[in-house]
Amino acid sequence: MKKKESNDFEETIVALATPQGIGAIGTIRISGNSAIDVANSVFKGKDLRKQESHTIHFGKIVDQDIIIDEVLVSVFIAPKSFTRENVIEISSHGSPYILQKIIQLLIKQGTRFAKPGEFTKRAFLNGQFDLAQAEAVADLINSDSNAAHMAAMNQMRGGFSKKIKALRDELIHFASMIELELDFAEEDVEFANRDQLVELILSIQKEISKLIESFRIGNVIKNGVPTVIAGKPNSGKSTLLNVLLEEEKAIVSDIPGTTRDLIEDEIHIEGISFRFIDTAGIREAKDKIEAIGIERTHSKMKTASVILYIIDLAEENTLDIREAEQKLKSLKIPWILIGNKTDKLSESALSKLKKEFPDMIFISAAGEVNIDILKKSLLNLIKADSFKTGDTIVTNIRHIESLTNTQTALDDVLKGIDRKVTGDFLAMDIRQSLYHLGEITGQITTDDLLENIFSKFCIGK
Amino acid sequence: MKKKESNDFEETIVALATPQGIGAIGTIRISGNSAIDVANSVFKGKDLRKQESHTIHFGKIVDQDIIIDEVLVSVFIAPKSFTRENVIEISSHGSPYILQKIIQLLIKQGTRFAKPGEFTKRAFLNGQFDLAQAEAVADLINSDSNAAHMAAMNQMRGGFSKKIKALRDELIHFASMIELELDFAEEDVEFANRDQLVELILSIQKEISKLIESFRIGNVIKNGVPTVIAGKPNSGKSTLLNVLLEEEKAIVSDIPGTTRDLIEDEIHIEGISFRFIDTAGIREAKDKIEAIGIERTHSKMKTASVILYIIDLAEENTLDIREAEQKLKSLKIPWILIGNKTDKLSESALSKLKKEFPDMIFISAAGEVNIDILKKSLLNLIKADSFKTGDTIVTNIRHIESLTNTQTALDDVLKGIDRKVTGDFLAMDIRQSLYHLGEITGQITTDDLLENIFSKFCIGK
Repeated sequence: MKKKESNDFEETIVALATPQGIGAIGTIRISGNSAIDVANSVFKGKDLRKQESHTIHFGKIVDQDIIIDEVLVSVFIAPKSFTRENVIEISSHGSPYILQKIIQLLIKQGTRFAKPGEFTKRAFLNGQFDLAQAEAVADLINSDSNAAHMAAMNQMRGGFSKKIKALRDELIHFASMIELELDFAEEDVEFANRDQLVELILSIQKEISKLIESFRIGNVIKNGVPTVIAGKPNSGKSTLLNVLLEEEKAIVSDIPGTTRDLIEDEIHIEGISFRFIDTAGIREAKDKIEAIGIERTHSKMKTASVILYIIDLAEENTLDIREAEQKLKSLKIPWILIGNKTDKLSESALSKLKKEFPDMIFISAAGEVNIDILKKSLLNLIKADSFKTGDTIVTNIRHIESLTNTQTALDDVLKGIDRKVTGDFLAMDIRQSLYHLGEITGQITTDDLLENIFSKFCIGK
Repeated sequence: MKKKESNDFEETIVALATPQGIGAIGTIRISGNSAIDVANSVFKGKDLRKQESHTIHFGKIVDQDIIIDEVLVSVFIAPKSFTRENVIEISSHGSPYILQKIIQLLIKQGTRFAKPGEFTKRAFLNGQFDLAQAEAVADLINSDSNAAHMAAMNQMRGGFSKKIKALRDELIHFASMIELELDFAEEDVEFANRDQLVELILSIQKEISKLIESFRIGNVIKNGVPTVIAGKPNSGKSTLLNVLLEEEKAIVSDIPGTTRDLIEDEIHIEGISFRFIDTAGIREAKDKIEAIGIERTHSKMKTASVILYIIDLAEENTLDIREAEQKLKSLKIPWILIGNKTDKLSESALSKLKKEFPDMIFISAAGEVNIDILKKSLLNLIKADSFKTGDTIVTNIRHIESLTNTQTALDDVLKGIDRKVTGDFLAMDIRQSLYHLGEITGQITTDDLLENIFSKFCIGK
């Protein structure tokens, strides 16, 4: 396996780096020892082998006598490139036909078509960045909200990796002290103070708990919050949904060529996306009698991460509201109780209700009153504010697995100390926790792990 | 109008240059006087204003304190750029969200979002190339076959423009001679020999006729050939169509990220695309009794540029074939008569038929016999071979209009000479022909003409 890896590595790879389709320009990326030679063999204009790194050259890509396109070629000389290998980028006219012709020509010249994520994998293996940073490259490309963008950027720039490395360094220090004890086993000395070790492990566990805890928001950032709007027929579910979605439509930027596809039934609040689920049900219900009634609402509420429950203030009384509240509490999912149709109530009735239900949000969906307050409550509900800007937020389930495994190994260390086991057992458990921390940043890797991570990348990255 | 144009020109423009969607990288292009200053104002890494042309710089795009992305910035200093203005290209991670953020930031810094084709328009107005070459840029981007690619490349590289310029120069020489006569009008001299002028105009008209004639193949190259497969029920239309389309599927390259969309019911023969029309009818007919029969076939044949008419050799006799031939001749559209199901005939019967109908192509669609010969005949039918590689082929309907107008103006010159009109009338008609030739390469332009041409470009080009 190792052998194959190293052969793979010697090959020069090529792929389209820009998105598929027609555009003004398209860019092909080549990486590997022979990247510059190969490009030079199909380039007419100047000798690319004699150019400095980070320079751009105008010329023609030719297949024998046939001119395929006039292009700009960028030269990056190892190790000053993304992959730390020789890299060539060819920018041609953005015709899929021409780009395909150029790639075919380069393959004929001895390059190989790159596997998904292979450029980034090479960058990682050549020490450009660690594994968590490499993973952030993919997150960055897929980021479609401010929060996801910022979390990926922080991770790519090494914020998370630094944290992991700091924890690891502290453990390594102790592990080496304990391993030193093993050399002097007969003398029964303790170089590593057990009380200090306990203290250290507890503080590391606290840090790791905080990181694991951050995944609650990290997951939300990366995958959005499945949200349900529930309530009795005609309470205004459909109206509220429309008001929220219309506002979203108005916000989405319309710079041609960059407009994100508007995902149906999704809104963004301060960069967090809330996806409304089972909205078809809500829309249907507008015209039909909702015969299935509250049971159906109940079952669909269970699939959500957040519930917006609407009370029709014009129809439902205090008892109804209490009953709804009880039901929501029993679900153990964060919820907001919304009193709708405030416009149909007298001011006195309204102020009485407000006193009785201080946690209820009073709105008029039809009148678009207090929608902003509702949005803010929605954001508060997922406790996004418990993390400050700059806080490290874990968004990757693989990292959570490794962190959880680290916690377990550290628990074992603590138990061992408690039971006064010998140094060699302690050292083993500490090494286990180091192993799991190392998986995150890639100090510890296996071919399978790398394969698994990079195969999810897009081709050309 | 002129005023606005010049103001437009002073603005620095920005757009996404790579196709829309997610990719490894995306490139934003900025062009104009302040391109480098604007980019520098959002770039952290080095001072872009101090860099040489055609160099690449790694750094961060920042909005105040917030890092939007790590990018590579390419610097092109006027006039050494595509537009001959200062140009910056920013290559960021290929997330539509990030690209949009960067463009928004650049617009906040005083650039303007580019109109479709505006980069190429500026390149034209700054003398980078003439109008016919600018138009070829769009053709190149949209080219999806070898023939279209080669025609666009030849035009972009100035092959067509050179031809037009040569014709124009000859006419200009004569026009100036005739205008010289006007200065000496009282002396009744003829600087421009009328016989020589007639000879020149006839030779120019011959050249132009050849160019206009080339549009027959040029149009085919650019737009493909609408082709109909006709014939009686069960003659094998559906089988032949499937055989041709299956071969095409096998040919289309499968380099990920560059694969052209396989256009349904289209095949390429030596880079020329043949689109089969009304294939739904053929497919339906397979299961149903084709009650509408020959009338329907007849009417759909009229919409084609090429007709493949299939005879079922096992069912139809000599009389039927003669009748079909007569019908095809009456349509005045190029056609091929195909004898299908050769496998069901005795060798002697087949050789007798071959003698009787020397122009018929004998195939077995089911047995995939002689399909290659059929394809070659199809190519011959559109007389693609009457133009040699390197011949100038006009693919643009606008150019054909101008060439036709030139011919008319030259006819008027000839008539004028014949009628012995005075030099000033001749000069007017020659100037008219110069005007129309000048429209092609853009020596003569109007705002409307440019607007019309460049608005069809994609944004970012």
